[in-house]
Amino acid sequence: MAGDHSRSLGKGSAAPGPVPEGVIRLYSMRFCPFAQRTRLVLRAKGISHEVININLKNKPDWLFEKHPFGLVPVLETSKGQLIYESPITCEYLDEAFPGKKLMPSDPYERAFQKMLVEQFSKVQHVLKYFVAVKDEQDTTVLKAEFDKELGKFEEVLLKRNTVFYGGDSVSMLDYMIWPWFERVEPFQLKDSFSHTPKLQRWMEAMKKDPAVKATMTDPQTFKGFLQLYLKNSPEACDYGL
Amino acid sequence: MAGDHSRSLGKGSAAPGPVPEGVIRLYSMRFCPFAQRTRLVLRAKGISHEVININLKNKPDWLFEKHPFGLVPVLETSKGQLIYESPITCEYLDEAFPGKKLMPSDPYERAFQKMLVEQFSKVQHVLKYFVAVKDEQDTTVLKAEFDKELGKFEEVLLKRNTVFYGGDSVSMLDYMIWPWFERVEPFQLKDSFSHTPKLQRWMEAMKKDPAVKATMTDPQTFKGFLQLYLKNSPEACDYGL
Repeated sequence: MAGDHSRSLGKGSAAPGPVPEGVIRLYSMRFCPFAQRTRLVLRAKGISHEVININLKNKPDWLFEKHPFGLVPVLETSKGQLIYESPITCEYLDEAFPGKKLMPSDPYERAFQKMLVEQFSKVQHVLKYFVAVKDEQDTTVLKAEFDKELGKFEEVLLKRNTVFYGGDSVSMLDYMIWPWFERVEPFQLKDSFSHTPKLQRWMEAMKKDPAVKATMTDPQTFKGFLQLYLKNSPEACDYGL
Repeated sequence: MAGDHSRSLGKGSAAPGPVPEGVIRLYSMRFCPFAQRTRLVLRAKGISHEVININLKNKPDWLFEKHPFGLVPVLETSKGQLIYESPITCEYLDEAFPGKKLMPSDPYERAFQKMLVEQFSKVQHVLKYFVAVKDEQDTTVLKAEFDKELGKFEEVLLKRNTVFYGGDSVSMLDYMIWPWFERVEPFQLKDSFSHTPKLQRWMEAMKKDPAVKATMTDPQTFKGFLQLYLKNSPEACDYGL
């Protein structure tokens, strides 16, 4: 069965057959933070699944039959149902499968988590620019913007006075934002956290979570991937295999 | 109690007091399609509520204490909880209040509705450009893009062979997309529907829904509002009162 670290399928590859009964399939890419959201939830809930990695720099034509814009993550069920958009895939898994519920049950707390996921898109946006900027360019403005957005997430933990965003155990919101925190090291943004002690504590706690451990990429490998990815290399998605 | 058709509050107005017990408050604007989503759900579920209209062209300072970017809709509870982002406000109301559930119970159907709401942002985007374009400019390209996006929503009804998106009665997705369909008349886009018979049937059925009827604005009034709004007039939000 295809796993988290399988080689990616690219243009010209045969489309995978139907999804076997009792399993759910994830179309993913090893370094994609959005797909990692779904992988975290699959692991956290212990859902029996297979992973098909996609070469996002040399996409197979059949990917567009799975997702209108050819993106990952996409879930496919044995009934042929397709689910995409990372927050939607995660909520789907939480609702469709038994085990610990990652979304809180209280309607306001649910809304609160969803609002913060929306707000987090600003952090994602700033990080995207960091990635795009070449080494020689000045990142002072971007850095200040990143620190400002980070401050909002520090404030939530400070106000709530809990280790995780939903209380004293990991819940959906923690997994939804984690992939970007895992990736700050290669961007020389680590010192941004010197003013955010609650976020620091949260990151240390997250690193002990089994699902986080299982999906973590070491910073050196991520850097290697990123260099190829930014050059649009078709080798990027299989870096390190 | 402030109602759907109350005059808007603008800069310099006193911030409203706490929300009374047993009521939920909506910060809204009479012509805003996003806020109409929330108004539709409030009506459909028969939730006891008050509406405070905001002058979006002359915003009160206190609005930024309710929403970080000073937008509507925002819900406020008697506990002082604030909920924003229109799909999040609607799901919150559906979960927190008794009565008919507007979201389907099946996890895939729920994901399906959320995916289509995301996809609908393309239609919203195209309509925004239509609004921005001055009368003299050529809208052929925009019109083609609108027709293409509309075609996708026609296809869903065709495939499912139901009157509404979730089956034979109105559900969340219908309310989430309705406000933009109500507004096509002033944009001379009505002929786009000559090739979409299922959408035509859907629109006729929607017009009979009590919540839709209760929140409908006649096209002439909407046109009057829009002319002022595009000129950034502080009178726009109170047009027709």
